[in-house]
Amino acid sequence: MSTKLEWLKEIDGQLWLVEDEKENLRLYYRVKEVIHAEQSPFQHVMIVDTYEFGPTLVLDGVIQTTSRDGHIYNEMITHIPLLTHPNPKRVLIIGGGDCGAAREVCKYAQVEHIDMVEIDELVVKVSKQYLTEVSGNLSDPRVRFIYEDGTTFVKNQNSTYDVVIVDSSDPIGPAEQLFSYEFYRDIEQALKPDGLMVCQSQSPIFHMDVLKQTYERISKLFPIARVYQAVVPTYPGGLWSFTLGSKKYRPEQLEDKWNKEAKYVNKGILKACFHLPESVRQALGV
Amino acid sequence: MSTKLEWLKEIDGQLWLVEDEKENLRLYYRVKEVIHAEQSPFQHVMIVDTYEFGPTLVLDGVIQTTSRDGHIYNEMITHIPLLTHPNPKRVLIIGGGDCGAAREVCKYAQVEHIDMVEIDELVVKVSKQYLTEVSGNLSDPRVRFIYEDGTTFVKNQNSTYDVVIVDSSDPIGPAEQLFSYEFYRDIEQALKPDGLMVCQSQSPIFHMDVLKQTYERISKLFPIARVYQAVVPTYPGGLWSFTLGSKKYRPEQLEDKWNKEAKYVNKGILKACFHLPESVRQALGV
Repeated sequence: MSTKLEWLKEIDGQLWLVEDEKENLRLYYRVKEVIHAEQSPFQHVMIVDTYEFGPTLVLDGVIQTTSRDGHIYNEMITHIPLLTHPNPKRVLIIGGGDCGAAREVCKYAQVEHIDMVEIDELVVKVSKQYLTEVSGNLSDPRVRFIYEDGTTFVKNQNSTYDVVIVDSSDPIGPAEQLFSYEFYRDIEQALKPDGLMVCQSQSPIFHMDVLKQTYERISKLFPIARVYQAVVPTYPGGLWSFTLGSKKYRPEQLEDKWNKEAKYVNKGILKACFHLPESVRQALGV
Repeated sequence: MSTKLEWLKEIDGQLWLVEDEKENLRLYYRVKEVIHAEQSPFQHVMIVDTYEFGPTLVLDGVIQTTSRDGHIYNEMITHIPLLTHPNPKRVLIIGGGDCGAAREVCKYAQVEHIDMVEIDELVVKVSKQYLTEVSGNLSDPRVRFIYEDGTTFVKNQNSTYDVVIVDSSDPIGPAEQLFSYEFYRDIEQALKPDGLMVCQSQSPIFHMDVLKQTYERISKLFPIARVYQAVVPTYPGGLWSFTLGSKKYRPEQLEDKWNKEAKYVNKGILKACFHLPESVRQALGV
């Protein structure tokens, strides 16, 4: 096991994970233990146990999911599209190596098949082994794991899926192409005539440019485009955005269909998440 | 001008403000310039210009308000109670030395008088001078500045105010008493028979104990108690809570009364802010 020490600092005998991808803001998380650290062909993959957030998945030094708050992101990226579609049978997840999104999709009995296309098998492996609070050690037979580039995979699909979920990391490194117009266009092709997609579209505080661009691209491709939000404590700024593109169904009255158990989502959140702060609404022109 | 260097660190020739009041989580903000630093009789008061958030008020090393996101907290702690009360004429603000809350209250033409009771005159002075993005260099003649202990002041009021806003710092140091049952009881006395109060009740992520205790105390004293939330990027965890206690009026259909301009609040936010995440709802038992 190799350890990339640039993200781990020892200070006064304590071990800290340092998130410093922002030039002017750094977050230090105190670490109990490095559970696993390994360079994959795509990125540096690490599971560290942090005092504040428990076991945490770190890719290239950036926190992706923690045991304490990973459910928020995973519930929000799945339940909104799955409740919007009246009968989702075939679902494609691109990315989502922590398995948390797939786990939530499996809560829907009407879903028959889930293709999970993750470029990095190592992320799935360590998440299933060490991040069970998030992954639930996913073993549902409806999930097919496909380890390849999501952009290549989706090019070869045509009218196949009811719902596509793009659960990517930040638009640097292996995930950069998952924010391109061509990729969203290919997803539009991969969806059935009444299908819909959702993607994470970054922080409205620190990456308004990415959110705006994503919303504009999805608005060009889909007659129905909506941005919604969640509060993820371990993502800088707290506020996180998702963008939904839909060919036919509108995300309305979702609370009337809610009958699951969750830790973040409830009927109120399903209504509230579409109400964006005024500055975000103005920046998007919605 | 003195400088407390324990909160400012020079790293590789750059100056950083270090928030380390949490044992296992540290935030580093890169600083352009220390604009003012001075020990008052109550606390260490500093205005630093940060790269990410602009001029920022720091008390005893903890960020209170920044030029970039201070409006969120100040809009949310004022507009909810002022819209809930059908005719707020006399308003008391306890704390709020950055003047941002008073500035928002001044947007209501029907408000005739605002008592602003802040223990630390220095906070008001430096905010008016250096934090004008937040304070607006407040000079409305309806505002009376009273520099004394809010807990003492409120004990001597009886059926005086329509709305009381408790805009405190964290429950350590000078603000500790602003979270006590006795203080809320004195506020209840200071309010008219149809009056209402609001206080900031900390992070549901990191201080659920404080939020729960505040909600329980206010529920004992007021027939109507409600918790609402906002996303404040510079507060750890992002999510922040406020608790409203009201003798008569319920915070309902506030969006129908909204006719102001704001950067965070809009009709949607006025509806959404009362919908709490499921884990918070369950912890509060609401």
